[in-house]
Amino acid sequence: MSQIIATYLVHDRKGEWEKKAEGIALGLTVGSWTNLPQIEQEQLKRHKGNVIGITELPEEERVNGYFGESRKRALLKIAYPAANFSPDLPAILTTVFGKLSLDGEVKLIDLDFSEELLQAFPGPKYGVEGIRERLGVYGRPLTMSIFKAVIGRDLDYFQNQLREQALGGVDLVKDDEILFDNSLTPFEKRIETAVRVLLDTEEETGEKTLYAVNLTGRTYELKEKARRAVELGASALLFNVFAYGLDVLQALAEDPQITVPIMAHPAVSGALTPSEFYGFEHALLMGKLLRLAGADLVLFPSPYGSVALPKEKALGIASELTGNWEGVKKAFPVPSAGIHPGMVPALIQDFGIDSVINAGGGVHGHPGGAEAGGKAFRQAVDAVLNGKTLEKAAKTETELAQALELWGNVVKK
Amino acid sequence: MSQIIATYLVHDRKGEWEKKAEGIALGLTVGSWTNLPQIEQEQLKRHKGNVIGITELPEEERVNGYFGESRKRALLKIAYPAANFSPDLPAILTTVFGKLSLDGEVKLIDLDFSEELLQAFPGPKYGVEGIRERLGVYGRPLTMSIFKAVIGRDLDYFQNQLREQALGGVDLVKDDEILFDNSLTPFEKRIETAVRVLLDTEEETGEKTLYAVNLTGRTYELKEKARRAVELGASALLFNVFAYGLDVLQALAEDPQITVPIMAHPAVSGALTPSEFYGFEHALLMGKLLRLAGADLVLFPSPYGSVALPKEKALGIASELTGNWEGVKKAFPVPSAGIHPGMVPALIQDFGIDSVINAGGGVHGHPGGAEAGGKAFRQAVDAVLNGKTLEKAAKTETELAQALELWGNVVKK
Repeated sequence: MSQIIATYLVHDRKGEWEKKAEGIALGLTVGSWTNLPQIEQEQLKRHKGNVIGITELPEEERVNGYFGESRKRALLKIAYPAANFSPDLPAILTTVFGKLSLDGEVKLIDLDFSEELLQAFPGPKYGVEGIRERLGVYGRPLTMSIFKAVIGRDLDYFQNQLREQALGGVDLVKDDEILFDNSLTPFEKRIETAVRVLLDTEEETGEKTLYAVNLTGRTYELKEKARRAVELGASALLFNVFAYGLDVLQALAEDPQITVPIMAHPAVSGALTPSEFYGFEHALLMGKLLRLAGADLVLFPSPYGSVALPKEKALGIASELTGNWEGVKKAFPVPSAGIHPGMVPALIQDFGIDSVINAGGGVHGHPGGAEAGGKAFRQAVDAVLNGKTLEKAAKTETELAQALELWGNVVKK
Repeated sequence: MSQIIATYLVHDRKGEWEKKAEGIALGLTVGSWTNLPQIEQEQLKRHKGNVIGITELPEEERVNGYFGESRKRALLKIAYPAANFSPDLPAILTTVFGKLSLDGEVKLIDLDFSEELLQAFPGPKYGVEGIRERLGVYGRPLTMSIFKAVIGRDLDYFQNQLREQALGGVDLVKDDEILFDNSLTPFEKRIETAVRVLLDTEEETGEKTLYAVNLTGRTYELKEKARRAVELGASALLFNVFAYGLDVLQALAEDPQITVPIMAHPAVSGALTPSEFYGFEHALLMGKLLRLAGADLVLFPSPYGSVALPKEKALGIASELTGNWEGVKKAFPVPSAGIHPGMVPALIQDFGIDSVINAGGGVHGHPGGAEAGGKAFRQAVDAVLNGKTLEKAAKTETELAQALELWGNVVKK
């Protein structure tokens, strides 16, 4: 039967798990069961939620101290028949975590989609392989950098920054997520400028660079705007999906006229994931659901920087983005924030070749400027892939040497 | 200057508040400041974020125990110039709580919109007064009930339930939020059936009843679907706004062809509001932002039932929905879950006349059925407005007496 299985982490005063799980399974589907006449049970059988598993977890003193009373803990698994909802993420989220999200300490840990249900979610249009094809880059992690402090600046400033970054050899350059439509650097002008700059730099370096323009504005204008961006030559879209909705991302990804990769930004997701008691598990929201909704690249806080994610959470996201799923392309994990060239060995060890090494300050803050900053990253990547230590590579690579001197070297553990 | 002022509750190891606040104000706007040349400072002045206030709060032992180390606490107020973002909620949320939501323990408590910025948010199309006009009901709280266990049932079942509820005298009947498009009770058929049933019951009782049909499906199909619902005679829309996005609600509310009130359901919002450390303050998300985005009625957990909200949180939401704002209509607070007739005095005392008394089990579970259940609520409302105790009214009102016997009486405190 087509269904979705939700796994919840529940903290509960009483810990009467079977009763609680049964209450959820019925309350979010047919309402009641045991007191129904046989004939109604027959009719409703295919709509009834079912408890699949209950795993009690040990109590945590830390947690009990915080609540000032005992909180028993368990993982509950409940199956919801797909017959109950339309095959879209708003319907699924409302079913499995609508009213239930309001019912005490309950966190949604995972969702298992049956194969039939998965068909409704085509996933990334390009994904890892499609983006590699566009760039002609294989066998190494991609590198990316971010515009810095463009708010209040004009197109000349934008153009110079883009040129510098591209000359450094980064594969992608993305808008800052807080750059919206504005009179100094309007959406269409940014794209037109980028097309021109990046044609020039490609001629100079022989390497392509994709520019991800920030797709912003009112929800019902996004498709038209994205299509217009593609017409003008945009090579990727940045999208603040959590300020809109997962289904909006899916609609953009499904639109056959939006023929560029979409990069999902984690803005606002910190309202949904970090609590131990509430919200969504990182790997589910930023990994599985973003991939199903069609993100080609997903940014999330790296486990290294100042805005850091616990390492197992970051790896959990990456694992959902790059796992083998029949018929669904892989998406690029982009662990971000606090990245400098000295971290490249750790990044490759942790996130593998199919990831994007992304830096803002780690590119712009290089003593030789953004161009040198980009070069230092590429040199670090080459060193790792050639089995050299960064120290050794730095003996011949000036930009990498300068970067290591400024930011240090993170030795692989 | 047009701007938005955000108030954050921050838990931080170091408590170097001025440095932290300044870091946020610059990091989310122009990036840097003190090291900029005078001429650039002039150019960027109108884009720079500004720290408006810092209030240190006492540490909480409970919190320190939970984190296993000291967490200093403060409220930070930061102003962001409207010149930096387009006047839409995704841009505003990304600016004030995008990257910042990922940066440790930070909760968004409030947003103050400058008057100019407020113009971009027309608020409810109908609101309290518009809904009262449609119903012809003034001077008392409205009453509402919810379909019960309609999943897996057919149109006959739906029709009988609706008729019973309407005959009981409730002003509104809403779909269950987990009822999606399905072959047994399709969207359009539900509306057509409801139009027929409610014309009949109006003839019998002399009272109008609005039916809120659940507007579901893919984001980019919602407008057309809502317009079609209006054409077919739907009298209100139920909308799981947090499974979509605030901007989608705003677009529906602004659409001149969607000429019915919109009821916002709190499904999934429990992933965003309950944490002490992360997410959004209830009053901001469920009160201020839903009203600005155009909700005419807002459901939220009542402070009384089993799925309960702390009372000050529920009152905080209601206060944002009904406060006097120049040029923005008031929205109906609908405190929900666990409501029975014995709670009506407390509900009116806490939420006032301009609120909706909403019950599911408290209507359907009445010993005399849903019709009697609705009547009991109306009798309780009349009693309170006439200055009678429920006990006294129950001497002549059978349905109320039965309800009080079953569920008890919540005496005003």
